[in-house]
Amino acid sequence: MPWSDDPAVVALGGGHGLSASLAALRRLTSDLTAVVTVADNGGSSGRLREEFGVLPPGDLRMALASLCGDDRWGQTWAKVLQHRFSSDGSMDGHAVGNLLIVALWELLDDQVAGLDWVGGLLGARGRVLPMALTPLDIAAEVRDASGEVAVVRGQVAVATAAGKVLDVRLEPAAPEACPEAVQAIAEADWVVIGPGSWYSSVIPHLLVPGLRTALGATSARVVVNLNLVAQAGETDGYTPADHLAALHRHAPDLRVSVVLADAGSVGEEASLRSACAALGAELVLADVALAGSDGQHDPEKLARAYAAILGAN
Amino acid sequence: MPWSDDPAVVALGGGHGLSASLAALRRLTSDLTAVVTVADNGGSSGRLREEFGVLPPGDLRMALASLCGDDRWGQTWAKVLQHRFSSDGSMDGHAVGNLLIVALWELLDDQVAGLDWVGGLLGARGRVLPMALTPLDIAAEVRDASGEVAVVRGQVAVATAAGKVLDVRLEPAAPEACPEAVQAIAEADWVVIGPGSWYSSVIPHLLVPGLRTALGATSARVVVNLNLVAQAGETDGYTPADHLAALHRHAPDLRVSVVLADAGSVGEEASLRSACAALGAELVLADVALAGSDGQHDPEKLARAYAAILGAN
Repeated sequence: MPWSDDPAVVALGGGHGLSASLAALRRLTSDLTAVVTVADNGGSSGRLREEFGVLPPGDLRMALASLCGDDRWGQTWAKVLQHRFSSDGSMDGHAVGNLLIVALWELLDDQVAGLDWVGGLLGARGRVLPMALTPLDIAAEVRDASGEVAVVRGQVAVATAAGKVLDVRLEPAAPEACPEAVQAIAEADWVVIGPGSWYSSVIPHLLVPGLRTALGATSARVVVNLNLVAQAGETDGYTPADHLAALHRHAPDLRVSVVLADAGSVGEEASLRSACAALGAELVLADVALAGSDGQHDPEKLARAYAAILGAN
Repeated sequence: MPWSDDPAVVALGGGHGLSASLAALRRLTSDLTAVVTVADNGGSSGRLREEFGVLPPGDLRMALASLCGDDRWGQTWAKVLQHRFSSDGSMDGHAVGNLLIVALWELLDDQVAGLDWVGGLLGARGRVLPMALTPLDIAAEVRDASGEVAVVRGQVAVATAAGKVLDVRLEPAAPEACPEAVQAIAEADWVVIGPGSWYSSVIPHLLVPGLRTALGATSARVVVNLNLVAQAGETDGYTPADHLAALHRHAPDLRVSVVLADAGSVGEEASLRSACAALGAELVLADVALAGSDGQHDPEKLARAYAAILGAN
């Protein structure tokens, strides 16, 4: 149970970016909800999605593992969930937690309850929810080097498309939002968006009508946490300001209170400052990069930056 | 932790027979250890054994599920473990618990520790151990209708062989016993053997040198719990006395204190009485059959029968 005076924080995203954010936020609040993208179509998740028609479980599993209890019990089960089989056979590449989540979904016939049971197993410090209740696909308009524009379908294809992503949409276009995610956003003090693959993990949330409505109606303040580097394929050549512009283009009615960026990664600061100003958002520059990494956030530094933002408002 | 005045009971077997026995014994003692055959080569277990070179996990999983905690937590995780995927794809037929056990073995590199973690997850009332630390095969001499004798290899082939099983052996012939199983037998008050597939789940334990030595040295009293019916393939046409004779042939030095048989299933009683007398064992006849079933034990009736045996000695 959350402590009553802890801020209610909802983190939107997917993949490693969301995990880094959760690893930081769990230090600051016991009232933490992750809302996770469900458009992955690659790897173990993609195979399970195809074989069982379920939500892709991988990003949900990673988020759950990031919230595992501090004790040996929680840490061991998180390792089990994250364990990936390696063989010459058909199990190769499957993450154990993906299989466990799919089994719970089949058994309980309730996606949220299944994830809550995995959270219970881990002694998770927070809750993990899917952004929508049906598996989604991402379709992107991509302009290649010759200027040709083509539609690319599927998260894997979008994430590795050669060219510049102009626009992204969901297929189906208006999926039902997870009701518990809508409620969490309504009751939140803070909503944190990003970091993560911009077009395939971050922007998709803003394209789910129910979430977008909830974000428009909530009194929560929104923090956008920018990536440290542009991502080959998805956001090749994007500046931090370009990331904000892409977000704004897909969700023009999103009110952003704070933009958090790594002081050492922003490059030319003026364009970012004016992009933030155009959104009405405060720019917070902090050292949040993991030393020696290529674009990863340091959970401890990120926790300090979040603490300053959450405490200052 | 076991209550100090509960009898220490070790149950040897595999498959559904062992599960029925455990479902009964868990009502009588908190100091319960299952020692499980590891010669299965069919189904999900057989596939995992081939893909990963691990012990076949299926019988271990079933035994663990039989010992799950009485509460909603234990019962739900037991259902998850027992859940079997059904699809047109490569996961079809895999039991979730089998995958979880294999993952824990890979992660911890310790078979007993892995099973203990699953037991912990279930809040298991007892411990489940493999009989040996390496996967085994069963090889049987089978005489067909024409009188020809051939060697049949693999549990599945043996269990479905057309003809009469004359002799069964393990390959490799002298596997290392699980040390914790040896210790449990040494410290036991009671050892229960059977019910179960006689040649592929019950007799194999007696062919593991370390277990056989432990059974010879322990002060525990041995109960043999006979099957209710002969098993097509393995023990077609066997009388209860024939089952005892097969056991004695493979383990002539095994001292049996009590033979438990279903009063309504033994058929001609005199030959069974004399087979018991020849072993120096007391014959206990009781109603232990599940009403309406074809050869299954009723755990509640079985618990009453075990209680009478354990309490009377």
